[in-house]
Amino acid sequence: MKFIIGKEDLLNGIRIVERATSQKAVQPVLYNILIETLENNKIRLSATDLVLTVITTVDAQVQEQGKITLPAKKLNEIVSKLGNDLVTFEAESENTNVSITCQKSKFDIIGISANEFPADIFNYEIDESKCFDVELKPFLKGIHQAGFAAASYEVSNLLSGIVCDFNNGILEIASTDGNRLARVREKITSDISEQTQLIIPSRTLNELLKMSSFIEEDSIKICKDKSTIIFKSEKITTISRLLEGQFPRYNQLIPSESPKQAVVNVSQLISALERVSVMVNDKTSIVKMLFADNELTLSADTPDAGKSEDKIDIEYDAEELLIAFNYRFVLDALRIIESDNVIIGLNAPLSATVLKPQSEDDFICLIMPVQIR
Amino acid sequence: MKFIIGKEDLLNGIRIVERATSQKAVQPVLYNILIETLENNKIRLSATDLVLTVITTVDAQVQEQGKITLPAKKLNEIVSKLGNDLVTFEAESENTNVSITCQKSKFDIIGISANEFPADIFNYEIDESKCFDVELKPFLKGIHQAGFAAASYEVSNLLSGIVCDFNNGILEIASTDGNRLARVREKITSDISEQTQLIIPSRTLNELLKMSSFIEEDSIKICKDKSTIIFKSEKITTISRLLEGQFPRYNQLIPSESPKQAVVNVSQLISALERVSVMVNDKTSIVKMLFADNELTLSADTPDAGKSEDKIDIEYDAEELLIAFNYRFVLDALRIIESDNVIIGLNAPLSATVLKPQSEDDFICLIMPVQIR
Repeated sequence: MKFIIGKEDLLNGIRIVERATSQKAVQPVLYNILIETLENNKIRLSATDLVLTVITTVDAQVQEQGKITLPAKKLNEIVSKLGNDLVTFEAESENTNVSITCQKSKFDIIGISANEFPADIFNYEIDESKCFDVELKPFLKGIHQAGFAAASYEVSNLLSGIVCDFNNGILEIASTDGNRLARVREKITSDISEQTQLIIPSRTLNELLKMSSFIEEDSIKICKDKSTIIFKSEKITTISRLLEGQFPRYNQLIPSESPKQAVVNVSQLISALERVSVMVNDKTSIVKMLFADNELTLSADTPDAGKSEDKIDIEYDAEELLIAFNYRFVLDALRIIESDNVIIGLNAPLSATVLKPQSEDDFICLIMPVQIR
Repeated sequence: MKFIIGKEDLLNGIRIVERATSQKAVQPVLYNILIETLENNKIRLSATDLVLTVITTVDAQVQEQGKITLPAKKLNEIVSKLGNDLVTFEAESENTNVSITCQKSKFDIIGISANEFPADIFNYEIDESKCFDVELKPFLKGIHQAGFAAASYEVSNLLSGIVCDFNNGILEIASTDGNRLARVREKITSDISEQTQLIIPSRTLNELLKMSSFIEEDSIKICKDKSTIIFKSEKITTISRLLEGQFPRYNQLIPSESPKQAVVNVSQLISALERVSVMVNDKTSIVKMLFADNELTLSADTPDAGKSEDKIDIEYDAEELLIAFNYRFVLDALRIIESDNVIIGLNAPLSATVLKPQSEDDFICLIMPVQIR
């Protein structure tokens, strides 16, 4: 194997695929990036943790065909420290020792044979009739807005997935961990014909968000093959297992209207929550909120440490209401909101509370309060 | 106790003294800052870990005298999140519960009685005849340059101290951990008359460096009281135990001349070391350096991972020499050097090697090589 490649192109390629390498692998090869020369003066980089696979191609001057896997972390360390120049990769066939040279720097790095890389991750079929194009920008914005409420990622937990529901020109994205819920609806340009609900692991979509700056096109092709989803742009292919099962009927949980409404400045509420949370009980993270007379009073206390209280002016003329939340859930939701003000829809101390940006109709966030004695 | 104080003044005061709070205290009060009102509309903040004590005064409008200790970490968290306005501290006498209010924010924080704060740390006497003033800027520069080679801080280890030797208008500062040594000599304006050698814990001087931006004067007063040293500026007093014993005669270790000399560009050598160190054996950190024919070849290797090599152009026309170092010691020294080039004075593969900035005569760093098979 021998190829010559630009340092920055190579580094970008490594950064794209290394997100899919395993963090704690049983097989050492899952820490590695598979490097393969292609026929048309390109190389292909692939990495997988067996759930998520990312593949990218990079232009290179290929002088001798071959393939090898190299440890992602070391490879990134080496390449990022090279001068900005052409880099030569060279290995004798059947040999796992690869030499990397750039200017006066030379590395010999010991890899693992490409034969040990799991081949079946590439065994997916793309049935073009089941693929559809989706406009990238609103899709990514939707994931950013409505994906944060998913449970932490676990292959076996359906709630660690983000629901993407394509229906008649509208994309609905939602996630919930049982204590909170986020949902956004976006008009989207797409050639999908029938209604399709996909439950995609939150990890997959979060990695897609992070690598999205490397995607040059305005839209991305989405294909489904049995329990696999494939996101395809010209240079990057992301393949992921889908989560399967019946996702909770979350839309039924969202109250159609809230009897009490408060209009609150988002950045004032964030600052007040951050101040008050200094005295929050670490075990419960509870902040109490008292809505009354155009004023919101926040308070927290921890035995042995002390207590805190803060007040902000709001618009609220309904009946006085004392309600308590895990303040982290409230902050998570507020930090996603781009509008200056949030409308907080309240009902009773133990009813689901609705947060809606004042200037955006299609995004909604639901938080379950906690009981206080 | 009651006083009103500006938020930024208070926050600066907290940041100055909290460096002296203990990181792992047997007595909880050592995590706290002692706050005392003074007669002349000032408050005094003090913290100590029983080795290092820092005291500062801050202007405040004192309405009722009193004192209390409050947890440094919580206090910093609270005050840094307050609006930039006046802050009121209030506590009933004999009560350890302090209320802090600012605008619409209110905190009740539970402290520990001031009586539990170790009083004997304030029991030092300043004999003005034994005090002297030192120009601050060259003193701090010298600590920065020649303090990094000290052993990691331990009360019982003399090598964790930094030697400051005042002698006839010259201040010599040096440190060594046995594997490396740094020494700087500075002309200094000071009214000290007799030669004085002080072995000051490196932690004390490093904290002094970090808080130096808060010292407004051009010079600082240094006083010695038995085994205690006191650094005094108008607003900040730093008190520290001195280390006692016979510091190694380090000047004898520095070779008077080196038979082989190389002139090397500092930033090129740093980059090459950083690249080569990717393949360094984590257990030994050894990088080999081959000086020959106006070229320096650096190399490292780790079984199972691979090896690295880099070359840089240097000025060197002496006999070829292969020598090996813990690369971290070389990087530490190079990163202190402000000159473009470093003169590396070599002798034999196991002789102490001297690093000197090309454009600065008074700073010298010595590194012991390691044996390679």
